[in-house]
Amino acid sequence: MEPALMGAVQAAREIREGRLSSEELVRSCLARIDQLEETVQAWAFLDPELAVNQAVQADQAKRTGQRLGPLHGVPVGIKDIFDTMDMPTEDGTVLHRGRQPLSDATVVNRLRTAGAVIMGKTVTTELAVFAPAKTRNPHDPQRTPGGSSSGSAAAVAAGMVPLAIGTQTNGSMIRPASFCGVYGYKPTFGLISRHLVLQQSRPLDQVGVFARSIEDCAVLAEAIIGHDPNDPDTRLAATPHLLQIQSEEPPVTPKLALVKTPVWDRADESTRAAFAELAEALGDKVAEIDLPASFNHAHEQHRIIMEADLARSFAKEYETGREQLSGVLREMIERGQRELAVAYNNAVATIPGYNQELDKVFEWHDAIITPATVGEAPLGLDSTGSPMFCTIWTLCGMPAITLPLLVGEQGLPLGVQLVGPRGDDAALLRTARWLVEELNG
Amino acid sequence: MEPALMGAVQAAREIREGRLSSEELVRSCLARIDQLEETVQAWAFLDPELAVNQAVQADQAKRTGQRLGPLHGVPVGIKDIFDTMDMPTEDGTVLHRGRQPLSDATVVNRLRTAGAVIMGKTVTTELAVFAPAKTRNPHDPQRTPGGSSSGSAAAVAAGMVPLAIGTQTNGSMIRPASFCGVYGYKPTFGLISRHLVLQQSRPLDQVGVFARSIEDCAVLAEAIIGHDPNDPDTRLAATPHLLQIQSEEPPVTPKLALVKTPVWDRADESTRAAFAELAEALGDKVAEIDLPASFNHAHEQHRIIMEADLARSFAKEYETGREQLSGVLREMIERGQRELAVAYNNAVATIPGYNQELDKVFEWHDAIITPATVGEAPLGLDSTGSPMFCTIWTLCGMPAITLPLLVGEQGLPLGVQLVGPRGDDAALLRTARWLVEELNG
Repeated sequence: MEPALMGAVQAAREIREGRLSSEELVRSCLARIDQLEETVQAWAFLDPELAVNQAVQADQAKRTGQRLGPLHGVPVGIKDIFDTMDMPTEDGTVLHRGRQPLSDATVVNRLRTAGAVIMGKTVTTELAVFAPAKTRNPHDPQRTPGGSSSGSAAAVAAGMVPLAIGTQTNGSMIRPASFCGVYGYKPTFGLISRHLVLQQSRPLDQVGVFARSIEDCAVLAEAIIGHDPNDPDTRLAATPHLLQIQSEEPPVTPKLALVKTPVWDRADESTRAAFAELAEALGDKVAEIDLPASFNHAHEQHRIIMEADLARSFAKEYETGREQLSGVLREMIERGQRELAVAYNNAVATIPGYNQELDKVFEWHDAIITPATVGEAPLGLDSTGSPMFCTIWTLCGMPAITLPLLVGEQGLPLGVQLVGPRGDDAALLRTARWLVEELNG
Repeated sequence: MEPALMGAVQAAREIREGRLSSEELVRSCLARIDQLEETVQAWAFLDPELAVNQAVQADQAKRTGQRLGPLHGVPVGIKDIFDTMDMPTEDGTVLHRGRQPLSDATVVNRLRTAGAVIMGKTVTTELAVFAPAKTRNPHDPQRTPGGSSSGSAAAVAAGMVPLAIGTQTNGSMIRPASFCGVYGYKPTFGLISRHLVLQQSRPLDQVGVFARSIEDCAVLAEAIIGHDPNDPDTRLAATPHLLQIQSEEPPVTPKLALVKTPVWDRADESTRAAFAELAEALGDKVAEIDLPASFNHAHEQHRIIMEADLARSFAKEYETGREQLSGVLREMIERGQRELAVAYNNAVATIPGYNQELDKVFEWHDAIITPATVGEAPLGLDSTGSPMFCTIWTLCGMPAITLPLLVGEQGLPLGVQLVGPRGDDAALLRTARWLVEELNG
């Protein structure tokens, strides 16, 4: 097998056991990038020599008997909003062109400690919001890869790297993963530090991972989860044993709650049909659940928080360079500037109430099953598609994973999103793995 | 000694060792209340029978060999914004008249667990903001006791109870303690739960204690400090050994930073003169420190947060009963309704920056020494005086204690405020005790 197409867990094992070198793996990935990048355009910054040098060092560390981390020698793509001290971080805007941070984001630092090769910086939409950048969907270059973590999803889908890091403030992880046909996993709010990551909204910003299997999502997330005094929303807690638990059999057969959400009518007809078939295939392992009426306001609460925070987070960009911002972002910022403090704090205060309602669903169900996106990746590169099927779960800070289990009527991937209770990430991955086997078996 | 005038630590010891019963103590306090309440008006709710019944139960618990808490049998006054399941909680507004909670606030629950007798509910200003209630200053009934924790400060000063609980969102602990000539101690933000306490502002609201000595402040605070999952701003941490540490000698002679703050010019001339004398008496144990210019905006940042939060917290009161709110509160709410989300979040975001600046002061100084109030309690009952000398420390969530060390030119008490670094409460109390001995010795 072409090393670039190996899973991360497998590649790390091959490297640890001496059957593969990190340099071979990285060169194999670089060869695929060389071959596909002109079409896919996943990378904002890539220095092949810097990547190979890290791989050579990883191989040398192994030879000299150093302790090897779980990702030793494995390349990871990093969304270009995470600061890297050896690569520029330009945040998808010309306003930050040439920006060279002095320090690594905590996530990057943890990846280096885990032995990973920081392959390069993947393309983000403008300031990680909506305005698309150059990346194209590897399944069809006429279509969007989704956003804002466009390059990370596309790079993993194209086999350019086994792993990549992204973020989600609305639907920026789950949507591109669904469109690109890979696994995207966004852990519970507060598990992963956002220190030295471009901030959009403190109550909403969440880091996540892309991979081509659940076990690869697990190994990558486990490496970057952890308390960071520099991110006050992270907490001291034992790191969940994601890799171990996801591999185990569920103690009892999981029960899923099919949640259509208040935006069900906005899903493509083929998406709704696919979920009807899915529910039929799962039989009594799934039950349809209606969310309380209060969730009809969740998208509006999310919008208030996000736009008011965009106005604050990008005040300097707006003040000094608004004509170089996209129209869509400018409008969001201008609406956000007008939001009142009372409305903002009321919106933030709805989150615990929503979570209490969702806790009731999880008393009788292991996970919520719901579409990842409205449908397949839409044609055209002038939009990244709609995040609306992710909004509630992001607002509530719940762990979510999208599984590339369906194929839409255009023949493109369509994700099945599973959502678990906050903090129960390991069980969610175990349920996800069970579902994949259930449907493939 | 009249038991009512004993300190809490002493009274608890006498009870534990069988030389005093809780019933004797409570009856002694009730006798003083009977004698002084007509003048002082400290109590919003007091049922002598309910208090005596708790005392009788405490005495019975001792006889039957139950484990005795640190406050066993000692009466505590509770500001009438903490929910109590056996007494009404009316929040100082006619709009909440007759309100009877079903549960105890976490603080009240912890006090019961520590063995305390919940003596009754002390008078608060209207919704714990500015509009005065009936309480008068025990040193001069023509003067305000300060607010918003008016009744708690006055009750302790008048010897009606050895201990009382209050809260501070701006200057509602330190100011009335200074005016009434008692010790007032507001621990670090996040040490004490605010669950089932009337909320004004989540980033600002802080619980504190009144007593007639530092050791009594320590024993009471230690009993109520603790993580509470119902207050997300509290954190799991070991409870500081306040009572033990405050009794110890400082390892080296403390060094104080005299901080005049940007509102120094608004202090009474006699206050400024008193602090000049104090500095002279302390000699090289104090050095005057100027805060950076950024602190000139601290009062405005505090105002933005507090007023926007008042508008949200009291939206229902405003909507349904605004004509029964005071003019001063109505105006604050109406300004708060117009605050923008960006301005609010910018104001909240200044707090870590201010704390970083203050951390530099504490690299070389054990505590900040600064006035507790503009001056002595002003004449008249139509205002509770100014909180401006407390605003910065409340905004920054720092531990603060006021010591009744000075007497103003009207012969009324004047507090000396000591402020410590966040989280270092025990050392602050130790420094405070050292200062009291230094100046009395």
